[in-house]
Parts: sequence; C-alpha cells; structure tokens
Amino acid sequence: MNAPIPVHVLPTFEPRPVPAAMLEALRQHFGTRCSTALAVREQHGRDESPFDVPPPEAVVYAESTEDVAFIVKLADEHAVPVIPFGVGSSLEGHLLAVQGGVSIDLSRMNAIVRVNPEDLTVTVQPGVTRNQLNREIKDAGLFFPIDPGADASIGGMSATRASGTNAVRYGTMRDNVLALTVVTAKGEVIHTGTRARKSSAGYDLTRLFVGSEGTLGVMTEITLKLYPLPEAVSAAVCHFPDVGSAVKTTIQVIQMGVPIARCELLDTHAVRAVNAHDKLSLREAPMLLMEFHGSPASVAEQAATVQEIASEFGGEDFQWATTPEERTRLWTARHRAYFAGLQMKPGCRTVTTDTCVPISRLADCVTQALAEAEAAGIQHYLVGHVGDGNFHVAYLIDPNNDAERDTAERLNKTLVERALSMQGTCTGEHGIGLHKQGFLIDEAGAGAVAMMRTLKRALDPKNIMNPGKIFAL
Amino acid sequence: MNAPIPVHVLPTFEPRPVPAAMLEALRQHFGTRCSTALAVREQHGRDESPFDVPPPEAVVYAESTEDVAFIVKLADEHAVPVIPFGVGSSLEGHLLAVQGGVSIDLSRMNAIVRVNPEDLTVTVQPGVTRNQLNREIKDAGLFFPIDPGADASIGGMSATRASGTNAVRYGTMRDNVLALTVVTAKGEVIHTGTRARKSSAGYDLTRLFVGSEGTLGVMTEITLKLYPLPEAVSAAVCHFPDVGSAVKTTIQVIQMGVPIARCELLDTHAVRAVNAHDKLSLREAPMLLMEFHGSPASVAEQAATVQEIASEFGGEDFQWATTPEERTRLWTARHRAYFAGLQMKPGCRTVTTDTCVPISRLADCVTQALAEAEAAGIQHYLVGHVGDGNFHVAYLIDPNNDAERDTAERLNKTLVERALSMQGTCTGEHGIGLHKQGFLIDEAGAGAVAMMRTLKRALDPKNIMNPGKIFAL
Repeated sequence: MNAPIPVHVLPTFEPRPVPAAMLEALRQHFGTRCSTALAVREQHGRDESPFDVPPPEAVVYAESTEDVAFIVKLADEHAVPVIPFGVGSSLEGHLLAVQGGVSIDLSRMNAIVRVNPEDLTVTVQPGVTRNQLNREIKDAGLFFPIDPGADASIGGMSATRASGTNAVRYGTMRDNVLALTVVTAKGEVIHTGTRARKSSAGYDLTRLFVGSEGTLGVMTEITLKLYPLPEAVSAAVCHFPDVGSAVKTTIQVIQMGVPIARCELLDTHAVRAVNAHDKLSLREAPMLLMEFHGSPASVAEQAATVQEIASEFGGEDFQWATTPEERTRLWTARHRAYFAGLQMKPGCRTVTTDTCVPISRLADCVTQALAEAEAAGIQHYLVGHVGDGNFHVAYLIDPNNDAERDTAERLNKTLVERALSMQGTCTGEHGIGLHKQGFLIDEAGAGAVAMMRTLKRALDPKNIMNPGKIFAL
Repeated sequence: MNAPIPVHVLPTFEPRPVPAAMLEALRQHFGTRCSTALAVREQHGRDESPFDVPPPEAVVYAESTEDVAFIVKLADEHAVPVIPFGVGSSLEGHLLAVQGGVSIDLSRMNAIVRVNPEDLTVTVQPGVTRNQLNREIKDAGLFFPIDPGADASIGGMSATRASGTNAVRYGTMRDNVLALTVVTAKGEVIHTGTRARKSSAGYDLTRLFVGSEGTLGVMTEITLKLYPLPEAVSAAVCHFPDVGSAVKTTIQVIQMGVPIARCELLDTHAVRAVNAHDKLSLREAPMLLMEFHGSPASVAEQAATVQEIASEFGGEDFQWATTPEERTRLWTARHRAYFAGLQMKPGCRTVTTDTCVPISRLADCVTQALAEAEAAGIQHYLVGHVGDGNFHVAYLIDPNNDAERDTAERLNKTLVERALSMQGTCTGEHGIGLHKQGFLIDEAGAGAVAMMRTLKRALDPKNIMNPGKIFAL
C-alpha cells in the first residue's frame, strides 16, 4: 500500500460477523444497554470524515472499566472487532466499522473520578468532554488547556493525540496525559504512569496508548495535568494584507520565544464564513486571533512585543478583547469555523488537510497550498494553529461530484508531499485513521511502519482492537 | 521477582559468550577500534552505580550509524548481547554486561549533525554531551535546557529519559526529543518522528525508545527541541529554618503557576559538602537554589512572588546572583554535590534514591525520609529537583560493610513504598537498570510489566539489546 488511499475508495476488508452466541451474551449482560437498532448502529459507524458508513453490528453502552473488560473478553474469545466511541468527532474515519464488530460507547463513562487541585491533576473517565471538565474544575481555579475545537471526549482526544489552539503554549495530549487505566486486547486491566510529573520507570506505555487510535486497547481512566487559571488573559485580533505576512509574524513570535498561549490564523474565506455564521463583522482579510496568559504585566509585555512584530509585517487594526464575553465570542466563532465553512456550500462535505511543518517553512507551505487551491478553482478556506506550524485547508466538495473529490485529494496529496519534503508531518493532530495510511508510509518509512505493525501484533494478536486503522494488518 | 533486588546481590544471568567468529569479524572490520583490553572492557562495564563490574568481552568504537548496524547485525546472527555506551554516567547499573557481550562505545559519534536555529531544533549524534551541545549553539542565541548534572551524552540522556534541574519549566527528555534514527535489534535503520513540533502519525515510537535504556535498539541520531536563550536570567539562594519550610515554599510556587526555571533543594549536609568541596561559604542550613528565565520584567516579577512566598515560610538571606560568573559558580557547586558528597566519607560509595511524588505530598515524603535516615544513623545528604516533586537521598556507605549496605537498601525500600503510596514513582529520572526491577513491578503492576516484556520480545526476540535491564526476560 504505497499510494494514499483515495478518500472515496475505502480499502477492502473481510467482514468479521458477530456470532449469535456473543450477541446473546452481550444482551444477557447489558440488557437495553446493548442495541442493534439500525439508527443507533449508524450513528456509531460515522465520524466527521467524508466516508460512507459501514455500521457496527451492535452498540454497547459501557458504564465501568469492568463493563469494557467484559465486552473485550467476549470479543477476544470470538475474535470480533471492538471500536471505542466517545462523541464521534474524529475526522479520519477512526470510528468506521470496516470489519463490523461491536462499538463500545463510552459516553456514559463521564465521571470526574478525582480532582487533586493541590497537585494540578485530575482523573477522568474517557467519556468526559473537555468543556465538561473545564466547567467542573473552574471553581478550583484550574483549567485543562487542550482544545481541538470540537467538544471532544477526553478518551477520543487521548486516542488521537489531539492538540488544537492552546498547544503552542501547553503542548498536546502527548504532554498532558500522566497516567491511564487500559483494558488490553485480552480484556485485562492494566495501569500506566503515576500522578508524579515525571518518571523513568520502564517503557512509556502511556505514550504508546496516547495516539494509538483505539488499536491497542481501550482507555477507561485518564489522569491529566491541569493548570492554574491565568491571573490575566487577553485576546486580540490583527488583520494582515496577505496570509504570508500573518504567518511571518507568527514565525518571528515563536522564534523570539514569546510564550503566546494561542495563535490562530484564519484566511479571508474563513473570516467570511464565521462572519456569516456567527453574525460577526470582522474585517474580511487574513487574520491572526491570539491569546496571552500570565500576570497582568507579563500579558501586557507579550502583547506589546507581538504588536510590534505584527506592525513590521503590515498587521493593522490590532483589537483587544479583554472581557471574558468578548473573548468567548471570538473563540466560539473560531471553533465554529468548521460548521461555518460547511454552510458556504449547501450539501457539501469537507476534505480537511492537517499538515504540520517546522516553523521556518510555514509561510512557504501555507502560501503554496492556497495558490494551488485557487488555481484548481475549488472552494476552500484555511484555519491554522500556526504557532505550532500546523494548519488545515478545508476543501468543500459535493460528495456526489467525483471530479471535486479527486481535485481535493490531489491537492491534499501535493500538500502532504511538500510538508514531508520540509521534514514535517502529514497529520499534526487528526491522526491516520483510514485516510492517511499511505501518507504514514511516505512519512515514517516502511521500516518504522513495520515496527508499528509488530507492536500491534504483539499486543493484539487477534487484531480485534479497532482493526484497519493506522494500517491494515 | 516480587521483591526489590538488593543492591549488593546482582540477579544471576547466564553468560552468553562472544563466539570467536564474531570477534574475528569485528576485528577485521574495525581494526584497532575493536578492543578486548581488560582496562578498556572494565571502563565500559561500569557506571556510577554501586555494583561490581562484570565487563563486556569486547568494546567497539562506532563512528557511524552504519558501524552500529554492522555490529548489531553480527550480534543478531550470533545472539550476542550489545550494550550502548555514552560517557558512563548512569546510576542504576545500565551499562553492566550481566551476560557479557559487546559494548558499543558511541563517544566518537559526537557530531552536531544539523542546527536549525530558525526552527529551534538540532540533530545530534548520540555521543554529543549536553555541555558540548550548549557550547556549540550558544552563538546562535539558543540553549538545550535538559541538565541531569553530569555532562552526560545526549544518547544516554535519551535512553534513561533524563531530566534534572530545568525540567520544572522545560520538561524532560520525553518532551524534548522530536525524532530519532534507530538501529533495531535486527540491525535495520529506522526513523521515528519529524522536525515538526507535534504529530499524530501513528504510534509514538520516539517515546517508546526514549527511556528504554538500550533494551529495544540503539539511537544513532537524535533531533531535539531548542530554546532561545532567555533575555534575562537571575539566580537566587534562600535559606530556611528546616527542609519542610523550603519544600512548602516550592509547593506554593508550583501551585501558583510561577514559571520558575530551576528550583533545587539542598539540605544542610549537602550545603556543607559543597562548601567543603568548592570552597564556598554558604550558610549551612537548608537552601533553595532557584533560577528565573524571561524578560527582565517577568524575571523580576517571578522573583518577587517567590521571595514573598519564601518569607512566609521563614526563608531568609534571599541572595541574588545576577552575573553569569556568580550563577555558574553556584550551579557548578550544585552539580558537584555528588562528588562533594563522596568526599565526606573517604572510600565510600553512594546509594542514591530517586523518588518523585505529586507535589502536595513532597513535604511529607522528604521530611519522613530524612527523619528515617537520621534515626538509622547513616551518613547521608539530600538534593532535590523539588519543583518536579523529585528528590535524591544519597546514603554514603562503606562498600565492604554489609550492615551499611543493608541499612541503605532498607531506607530506600521504605522511601519507595511511601512514594508509591502517594501515587508517585520509584524513579523520576535515573531509570530502572538493575537496581529497581522489583520496584518497577510494585509501581506499575504485574500486568503493565508483562506488557513491557511483550514489547521487548516482539522487538528483540533474541534478547540481545542490553539484556537484563528494566526486567529479566
């Protein structure tokens, strides 16, 4: 499999039917918490990717680690696939039941198990969403910064190694998961990591599971780092004559080591979309949306430095949003860009790129990607976590128009090739799923992917944990 | 193996002799770069741990990835152990050739392969030491913060997931290694990670190798994050009436989110040792040695906050070291604490603990450990990266006195048990090596260690990569 899988042709997988005996055992144990209703199955065989839906054969609503272990033990016995499900916001086909099997819905495992404010840690069940978590810890003066836009589940965010708008300052899920409880492919329960901030105790199993897309086990408890709510927070928007100038501003901010908390780029199309969707009146020009965290003096100093850099690159209309309400309004608009974009072309689906490159190459990478999209005449917009070197071009395609799909795929492929030639990655935060399996080989090389397969076979010899994702065995 | 291995009894391993044919092939290929001289072998079968020395049968000085691949292919063919060697500063018996085999000396692979100042990354060979790296990037206005005290090699630091004095602000090797070139147990060369700051592309092989103590493969190129040299740096010492007050100050600094760069505790014994060794005249009382990085205003603000907290806990004599010379003098003294400690008891060896606990439990953990050492009447001192919750009690023992060894081991065991009961770890930064294999099982549980063994068997089926470390197969 050396070529990227085209978005509209799924790889072929042998179906692995759920035996009647297993279904019966699930029904006996879980009662109405086990569903085979088509509507329920279809909801669980779908994510935000542009793929069609092969639904799982059954959905089980787990409420405890023991529930998950029970399901996985049965799945192991019958060699049946299981697919963990959080809120369904993944983007690369992670949840699609390409070989059938059982979807384990973890949304009812949504308890905050334990907050330790004095240690800046929290332990949650995987179905807790990031907004829920932040609501529940706010009164303790704490927050969890990782913010992929969607109100994703912590389990899903861990499984895809998510990041988003705050990663430039606070890192990604890789950096913020301290410990896990995991149900292995044999249905056994293990614990990885501790609540200490660092450890050198053996292999980093925590990091092996973070980003493994459900293919090695099911996370049933997740311990996270928390942060004190900053004393001062300030957000600003700044408009630029072109996207390149906005990116060059970002590059210099990062190179100077300014501890900016968020640094988001929206191109003119994206600004237009959020204006229409959220009834805003932002100037329709490339825009940086930034946020600064710290003491009042430090925030003021950071902002002054950035403003100076921005003005060197033609940045204008530096506007502050210091009240929580204004900030919320701007960030809500940013987070809705995906849905705002969809509304620009009724009935469309989105093919979203996710390249991430070394910061010095970002301006080249972004401007070439946009020039190519313009030249191809495909409707698109761009948003980017540019402080990390990560950006998304969203191509809006008519799902019934093969030519548009092909154009989007071709542009994506060209963009990934460019990012790899710049020593970057095909996916900064969305994961491989079904869509990027060819790109993974281009990026990591056959040897590294062979090693990943070896690990998968060792930990999941029957290939029951979300099979067909990251790579086909 | 449920009990910790006592420090003075090595587990028993079957020797695995190097066949004459392999030795001949190494000599033919490497000439004088392959040595079987006893002095060379003994130097390579030793580290800073208190174990006796079973030396490897041969030492080969590798000068390239190809050299390493050549050696490992031969080792694979003959099922002979290989042990990567950097500068020999590890502390837990990592370098001991418990089954004989070949030591791969990587110290000549000490080239800075590529600095990308505009991306804040550098790629180095594994034999580059941290001081060498910092000297070579200083003129570009950059630094690499990870500082375990010893002038360790970057390869060794990666292999043990090292951290040290700057980790409270900049993280550990886990957080700062972006990409690797690795020679696998089959002698194949693979690449992990990219130069992008984040990625969701498949399993996190980089993090699997970081901290694997040479048991999964040999790292031959390492790409690291760099940081702009801070605009302002300020160091301060502050003395406290007792260790508990110093720790409580630290806890509050961390809980408030002050971005302190270094926060080191020395107890009275440690201060006395460095005074004697480095001809300093520090007040002989528990002391925090701190450093602040940032803009001049931010550094001043951080320091003022910390000074205020310290004074609440009885901290006195807040003294600044703002010139580079003064700072260097203080940090050099801190880094020499280990050797300073050894001089307090001529002919002694050190048994060093390495527990790390959630920050709120640190005061309890430290004060109980010290009370127990005092009660046992064993000579000791304490240094700690207390901002991380990590500290080291060094027990000074006469290597020929079994009673002292036993006392040190008993105290260490009690301390580890307490740290684990506080949801901490037996090793914050030194690794498992030979010494902590029992503790690893106590900490991670049999299930997680079984998974580590499964990974090891999958990637190194002949058990040739530094066998007997982390766990016995």
